[in-house]
Amino acid sequence: MRSPEIASDGNVTFRLRAPEAHAVGLTGEFMKGSKPLVKNDQGVWSVTVGPIAPEIYYYNFTIDGVRTIDPANPQVKTGSTPSTIQSILDVRAGTPAFYDPHPVPHGEIRTHWYESKSLKTTRRLTVYTPPGYDRSPGTRYPVLYLFHGANADETAWTRLGRVNLILDNLLAAKKAKPMLIVMPFGYGVPPGLPQSAPGANTAAFGRDLLEDVIPLIESRYRALSDREHRAIAGLSMGGGESLNIGLNHLERFSYVGGFSAGLRAAELQPMFSSFLSNPKAANQQLRLLWVGCGTDDGLFPTSEAFSKLLDDAKIKHVFHKSDGAHTWINWRRYLNEFAPLLF
Amino acid sequence: MRSPEIASDGNVTFRLRAPEAHAVGLTGEFMKGSKPLVKNDQGVWSVTVGPIAPEIYYYNFTIDGVRTIDPANPQVKTGSTPSTIQSILDVRAGTPAFYDPHPVPHGEIRTHWYESKSLKTTRRLTVYTPPGYDRSPGTRYPVLYLFHGANADETAWTRLGRVNLILDNLLAAKKAKPMLIVMPFGYGVPPGLPQSAPGANTAAFGRDLLEDVIPLIESRYRALSDREHRAIAGLSMGGGESLNIGLNHLERFSYVGGFSAGLRAAELQPMFSSFLSNPKAANQQLRLLWVGCGTDDGLFPTSEAFSKLLDDAKIKHVFHKSDGAHTWINWRRYLNEFAPLLF
Repeated sequence: MRSPEIASDGNVTFRLRAPEAHAVGLTGEFMKGSKPLVKNDQGVWSVTVGPIAPEIYYYNFTIDGVRTIDPANPQVKTGSTPSTIQSILDVRAGTPAFYDPHPVPHGEIRTHWYESKSLKTTRRLTVYTPPGYDRSPGTRYPVLYLFHGANADETAWTRLGRVNLILDNLLAAKKAKPMLIVMPFGYGVPPGLPQSAPGANTAAFGRDLLEDVIPLIESRYRALSDREHRAIAGLSMGGGESLNIGLNHLERFSYVGGFSAGLRAAELQPMFSSFLSNPKAANQQLRLLWVGCGTDDGLFPTSEAFSKLLDDAKIKHVFHKSDGAHTWINWRRYLNEFAPLLF
Repeated sequence: MRSPEIASDGNVTFRLRAPEAHAVGLTGEFMKGSKPLVKNDQGVWSVTVGPIAPEIYYYNFTIDGVRTIDPANPQVKTGSTPSTIQSILDVRAGTPAFYDPHPVPHGEIRTHWYESKSLKTTRRLTVYTPPGYDRSPGTRYPVLYLFHGANADETAWTRLGRVNLILDNLLAAKKAKPMLIVMPFGYGVPPGLPQSAPGANTAAFGRDLLEDVIPLIESRYRALSDREHRAIAGLSMGGGESLNIGLNHLERFSYVGGFSAGLRAAELQPMFSSFLSNPKAANQQLRLLWVGCGTDDGLFPTSEAFSKLLDDAKIKHVFHKSDGAHTWINWRRYLNEFAPLLF
């Protein structure tokens, strides 16, 4: 019994062996709502959906009311909270996608354990080094600090975002500059806590970033350490963090990106009051301010409102309005758009 | 609703919200057999087990006959086949264990994508570099090649085996020598295939190891490349691989380890005939041959039979007979015993 089984016409069959179950349903990013699976006389439930366009999607089964994964599929998305646990459906096209491995030089992913003095705990962070980093001891590199979203962790951008493969492919095509990409754990307070104190997470995360992570990177790597060679971006919760920290620390960063940024419309004015009131400084200091969101994303109105605030203040920026919703499909594409604009 | 909830007395309560389910069971490495969960009037099923001694264990829920994970627990063990998907229970003692992070210098984990010429595919491998590797450009390091078991992948020794934290702690206590540890993907044929051709997997995996992985490591890292500074070890399927490849390539390796090695008694004589018939060469060339297995492991008789073959041939070796079964509990402990004996 295989699940998921992807037919050559793009139809995908999902199956579950569950003779004793009473109801099995499917939810997934490739469709709206849910679909029931139907049981055959061997106790195998199934449903066929499609055709589904080539992409990487997440899905869940609901077995007698319990949302869980497809137990026949080894590919599982995990993170820092249980809500993120989903099975992975990777529908491939005839040729590899921009996020697939191509036969090009490959960079590396490095994982560090470090003692965060500001947070008084041991944390992990992930670093992408471009192809040839170890063989170019005289070269120093610009750095992109790149943040994940809520419920995820410091491995999300490599496991789900394919950051290394996207950069390997851009670099092989000479569409981006070689850079280090630093992906810290995006929570300053324990994940899953109620948001009782707005801003507490970003404040704590920002201390770790500015006081622990950046010094660690600049001592352990051949990193260019001036603001002209430092970029900051993130998705969802991490997009809120990157805009908040980046635009309030232009002395540190000259490229800032927010992907489907997790901000509330009401907090935009207070959070960015200093930045918005100095458009001349902003336009002089910022090499790039990039805001992207999908029109089906619940956060789209906030990104649009933020872009309007920037327009009203005459602050130059890119507002990348895309199709799609709050998904890794968009974040991989945004990285593929954003990285070539850096440095 | 929390699951699992670990009480201060070591009792652990597992919970599942499933008002529509008809039967929920628990299986786990911390107990024999399975236990039913009992539903309360809010539709939450629960069972308390224990006290459970501090360790890292794996467990599953069975919901109306379907073996799956605990959907309230973000910690999930994954690998290369679905059979390996389990929830993780980490019961901590009052002080950190030998596999927990301590406030000591930390090494790094590096992940490489590489084109395997011998297998004509893109593969990944994981490398541990000890603390200070980047700051010691004049130092070359010995290398341990370390393999995972069936259904797992090249991330298993770091995610589940805590190889980096175990080595960091041994190094801080000056109980081991600084070394590189290289963890390739242990399958030469696709995982999950029936074992139709015995030896086919190890033969293909061995080609990738000897012709692609070792040359890559010795060109990308400051690795000592003589046999005196090369060790090979693995667990379960990977223990079969390490013994088979290591003992049949003494021109390449001088330290060989098999942890709960996945071999069949009937293949020992043919696999090791050349090695066993040259005990003088074996004793001259081997600095260490280390075989470990738990007495509750189904593979224990094979490890014992192998040790007896070595005794009969008067080949020096360590036979480490431990408590316990075929679990990561033992493999973390074996690494902690084995690594100090190297180099």
